[in-house]
Amino acid sequence: MKINRINRALDSLKEQGISQMLIVDPMSIYYMTDVYIEPHERFFGLYIREDGNHVMFLNNLFTIPDGVDIEKVWYSDTDPICEIIARYLDKEQVLGVDKDIKARFLLPLMEANAAKSFVNSSLAVDMTRGIKDEEEQEKMRVASAINDQAMAIFKTLIHEGVTEKQVADQMLAIYLDLGAEAYSFPPIVSFGANAADPHHSPDDTVLKEGDCVLFDVGCIKDGYCSDMTRTFFYKFVDEHQKEIYNLVKNANETAEAKIKEGVAIHVFDDTARNLIADGGYGPQFNHRLGHFIGLAEHEFGDVSSTNENPAQAGMIFSIEPGIYLPGDTGVRIEDLVLVTKDGVEILNKYPKEIEIIE
Amino acid sequence: MKINRINRALDSLKEQGISQMLIVDPMSIYYMTDVYIEPHERFFGLYIREDGNHVMFLNNLFTIPDGVDIEKVWYSDTDPICEIIARYLDKEQVLGVDKDIKARFLLPLMEANAAKSFVNSSLAVDMTRGIKDEEEQEKMRVASAINDQAMAIFKTLIHEGVTEKQVADQMLAIYLDLGAEAYSFPPIVSFGANAADPHHSPDDTVLKEGDCVLFDVGCIKDGYCSDMTRTFFYKFVDEHQKEIYNLVKNANETAEAKIKEGVAIHVFDDTARNLIADGGYGPQFNHRLGHFIGLAEHEFGDVSSTNENPAQAGMIFSIEPGIYLPGDTGVRIEDLVLVTKDGVEILNKYPKEIEIIE
Repeated sequence: MKINRINRALDSLKEQGISQMLIVDPMSIYYMTDVYIEPHERFFGLYIREDGNHVMFLNNLFTIPDGVDIEKVWYSDTDPICEIIARYLDKEQVLGVDKDIKARFLLPLMEANAAKSFVNSSLAVDMTRGIKDEEEQEKMRVASAINDQAMAIFKTLIHEGVTEKQVADQMLAIYLDLGAEAYSFPPIVSFGANAADPHHSPDDTVLKEGDCVLFDVGCIKDGYCSDMTRTFFYKFVDEHQKEIYNLVKNANETAEAKIKEGVAIHVFDDTARNLIADGGYGPQFNHRLGHFIGLAEHEFGDVSSTNENPAQAGMIFSIEPGIYLPGDTGVRIEDLVLVTKDGVEILNKYPKEIEIIE
Repeated sequence: MKINRINRALDSLKEQGISQMLIVDPMSIYYMTDVYIEPHERFFGLYIREDGNHVMFLNNLFTIPDGVDIEKVWYSDTDPICEIIARYLDKEQVLGVDKDIKARFLLPLMEANAAKSFVNSSLAVDMTRGIKDEEEQEKMRVASAINDQAMAIFKTLIHEGVTEKQVADQMLAIYLDLGAEAYSFPPIVSFGANAADPHHSPDDTVLKEGDCVLFDVGCIKDGYCSDMTRTFFYKFVDEHQKEIYNLVKNANETAEAKIKEGVAIHVFDDTARNLIADGGYGPQFNHRLGHFIGLAEHEFGDVSSTNENPAQAGMIFSIEPGIYLPGDTGVRIEDLVLVTKDGVEILNKYPKEIEIIE
């Protein structure tokens, strides 16, 4: 058990006047207990409460390591799991529930009046997860260092006649060789006009001279995710591509330079967006600047124009401005960054100077 | 749109006195509309109603094919999606909700009194999906035929010194060569004592003479899943293994012979379980006999001692008895079966006679 993490979440719940919460996001449970289970359709929950009598609900088909220091309630497929949960809840108090709890578990608990009322209290957990402790920060550094090394190798996969899919198909083995466990998300490899779709899936498009080559890639190391984008050019780069590239690079670097504890998060998005708009490509930067990341590739919290919260030391998120010109080209440059008391630590070290692959 | 499928679900809702339902399971939406989207944390829903004014709710970051014949409501990340949904619901009527709808969407709809009450009405959709129409039956036949062919090839991967993981790592390419799109689930390859864990993941265990070799494998073809288990023996089989094998085979075949429209589903489980118990291995058959399958590898509905529903023509499920002896060995034999008016069509044709790999 990571009792400090549970207590940080309970403190945050207390500020909302909530003394008990039922957590079901497997990654949040892992974060608090080191137990990871993918429950599929079965119920898997961690019930935390002010008085410290935390309980984990497990189907007896799950297996967990020995020595997990928490009260465990095992149930079978034929047991009435919602009735069992209800016995542990404090009926006289509000129950905070995970934003992800499904109707088939939530509605029976509500019908049984298993708590005074039910509120989505996920923010307490999500904000706790959003601020990485030192152990997590170090794991995020390591995952991003592998991603930097991988990017240098991925670039060497580019040669005449290759397709996006052929390049992408080689990436997993490279990550595994570098010590990663898995992709953090399926890699994006986009040539030329395909880069204008920020979520393009690698296909049979063949590389052409003058194409941009966009890699948006990441791996998992020790459970933590990396995520970086670099955009190269094959054989040559024309003036228009260069203009766009430098505008995106400037947006990325200027936004990163603003990062510091206490600065409102929307300021980073505003900074990048205004620069790109001033350069004439405002509508072509059509997504938020970044997202939080950690145990999951996309965690709660975004770096967007609407996030008024102040940056806090320990937050890790992406900074990924882009310009997308349908039918033509696309450029995105993305780093993961760690907010510090005095500024920012940029976790990705792979250079951002314009680079031509010969 | 598959209007027949929507109407079958509406008929079933009507029997429960429900005139409107909000569906969020992406596979159920695909089943009814041919639109497949993996929405991740965003909302994707299909609202169906008695009067035929069905609506699909889509984030503008999703892409769908042209020509989908249904009213579409697009929203952006900054729109209040629950308020938007509420505008379309009939507030005076009960709303059936998908069992999978999450608290972060359900609670705001409840707080806004967007319907008279909220009930989990997923059975209406699940029972509709549980009975495959002719188009689906044919796709399930094709997926299982590929699985039969694949099993014959997988057997040839077994040789001295090979590990489970080395065998498993070759399977995807074989499925793709045979025309499948993907695994329906990560393959289980278990040698010897590892077969005593029904959910063993392939690892570095090296094959030994006298080991059982259990393959529980499946692929997706045209969106539909196959799933079959066969247990072989390497070099020789001892009398004890033979006894267990023949008991499981008899349980599999006797249960399959009972299948027919109108027979209560638990009868199939009872039949297999009683035979195995009579053979002295009751406690060593520690899971249900089977599960429904189709667009998803595990669909709603199980073949267990507690399922009192009658089998209906068009249902497809697995029949997979097993005996598991921890530290020693394990045997499971699994087919997919299609219930018919007069009996059963067994979709897997791969032989079940005991087979020794030399």
